[in-house]
Amino acid sequence: MPRTIVASATREHVIDTDGPFTIIGERINPTNRKKFAAELEQGVFDTVRADAIAQEAAGAHILDVNVGIAAVDPNETEPPLLKQAVEVVQEVSQLPLCIDSSVSAALAAGLEVAQGRPLVNSVTGEEEKLESVLPLVKKHDVPVVAICNDESGISEDPEVRFQVAKKIVERAADHGIPAHDIVVDPLVMPIGAINQAGRQVFELVRRIRDELGCNTTCGASNIAFGMPNRRVLTAHFIAMSASHGMSSAIMSPLHEEDMAAVFAANLLNGVDPDSRGWTGRYRQAPAGGDGDDRRARRRRRRRG
Amino acid sequence: MPRTIVASATREHVIDTDGPFTIIGERINPTNRKKFAAELEQGVFDTVRADAIAQEAAGAHILDVNVGIAAVDPNETEPPLLKQAVEVVQEVSQLPLCIDSSVSAALAAGLEVAQGRPLVNSVTGEEEKLESVLPLVKKHDVPVVAICNDESGISEDPEVRFQVAKKIVERAADHGIPAHDIVVDPLVMPIGAINQAGRQVFELVRRIRDELGCNTTCGASNIAFGMPNRRVLTAHFIAMSASHGMSSAIMSPLHEEDMAAVFAANLLNGVDPDSRGWTGRYRQAPAGGDGDDRRARRRRRRRG
Repeated sequence: MPRTIVASATREHVIDTDGPFTIIGERINPTNRKKFAAELEQGVFDTVRADAIAQEAAGAHILDVNVGIAAVDPNETEPPLLKQAVEVVQEVSQLPLCIDSSVSAALAAGLEVAQGRPLVNSVTGEEEKLESVLPLVKKHDVPVVAICNDESGISEDPEVRFQVAKKIVERAADHGIPAHDIVVDPLVMPIGAINQAGRQVFELVRRIRDELGCNTTCGASNIAFGMPNRRVLTAHFIAMSASHGMSSAIMSPLHEEDMAAVFAANLLNGVDPDSRGWTGRYRQAPAGGDGDDRRARRRRRRRG
Repeated sequence: MPRTIVASATREHVIDTDGPFTIIGERINPTNRKKFAAELEQGVFDTVRADAIAQEAAGAHILDVNVGIAAVDPNETEPPLLKQAVEVVQEVSQLPLCIDSSVSAALAAGLEVAQGRPLVNSVTGEEEKLESVLPLVKKHDVPVVAICNDESGISEDPEVRFQVAKKIVERAADHGIPAHDIVVDPLVMPIGAINQAGRQVFELVRRIRDELGCNTTCGASNIAFGMPNRRVLTAHFIAMSASHGMSSAIMSPLHEEDMAAVFAANLLNGVDPDSRGWTGRYRQAPAGGDGDDRRARRRRRRRG
């Protein structure tokens, strides 16, 4: 089963369909964060630094680094910005990085300074992307996230998305990039828009693993877009996806519900030996733990 | 795919591997409820009544009725007690029942007064059980829960448990009972004792559905026995099991975490059309809902 090796200068991490779930910290990203975006425009990296430290402390395995802000010419401005952000993160964290940009020149700039074996985020099935990103990936001998859309956009048909993944894997092979260095994002659609969006992902994840030999990742919270109680829904989606073979997610390690889902999934999928991960995290019986159980028993006795 | 029809005098419910998850309310059971047990000893049914009403209001589809209390001779005392309990529940609830006893004579007594098409809980692979329970099930033309243990006890080997299920299904066929009227409990072992207990269930559920043509059920909370934060762990187990085809659980509809797991599983498994179940339950944005998201966005802006 596929094993994707990522590394910083000092630390290696394996994304592994047969191992524990990989948490890719999503926080270093200015999308919908106006103050952070304004900081980056001024070349201030305080939030980048703080988010890196907080996510490592919270249990992230890999840190996504995205500095995509609105700009007149992102091809000019984003490469130096991403380079600096990568350097800043490497100063404060030992974690491997996920270099994230829609600008190929920015990926190239980030890769120049990234130490170890970062994950590149991302290539798509678009011709321009395939021919600009895959040579970079090959040159630096790094793994890459492959997103299942192409020139025609994002298909609602999971079969079409699978075929895009297949095309990317085949094209990568032409460039000498093995399938185990490709982490496929099957694209998570909002369940409020597409009623079968959850089931689609569970089935795609299996096929991508079994037929293409690739690990998988996703932006998990997209499933719950527009839904009430969306944190709980996202958490269940993470654990259910993991039990069908999803090997990682780009997510916030600062959300307790999501982290509980990852730890529960590891335990229930049989990849948390001696339950050490779960009991290590929850032995102190936090909210929802034994304290609640005791209260429930008291209630039961009163009612009984 | 298997459809198991259960019914009260007025209401029908289908346990269906391709439909929404079935909630069998577990509360009417004196195990670990001393005051309830004491009531039953005195022939008082107030708790039976209250638990029936509360569970129906909370969203149970079927009510389990178990009045097994310590007794000198349960073969003498349990049959009339279960008969009375069934009658009491039928007075206050329209839900189909699950008649639950380890005493075959009590099952027979309960079946005499139960209206509609109750589920019998349970038969095992033990010879004595097979030959006492299956004729009852056939006589009343009702469905039955089949538990995967036999004279040798509960095997830690899932293959042995599958073979027990297969034996019960074959023996039931000899009695003229079809596979779709058997709801198999693959037995959930505590994950703290058996590290592969979760994965075992996910795989067994698929095989029981695909190879035996049966629906499945379980005592879900057993997975988290002895674990910290066990309510959250049980909830994830319910949703993950459901995504592998588990069609029901004997559980408490009074636990929000467990109910959220069922509703999330229905939505993510594509059996909650137009998300009506989820949005109906959570539109008012209770704890963990949109309110939390707004706070998170404010925090993000402050930090950003």
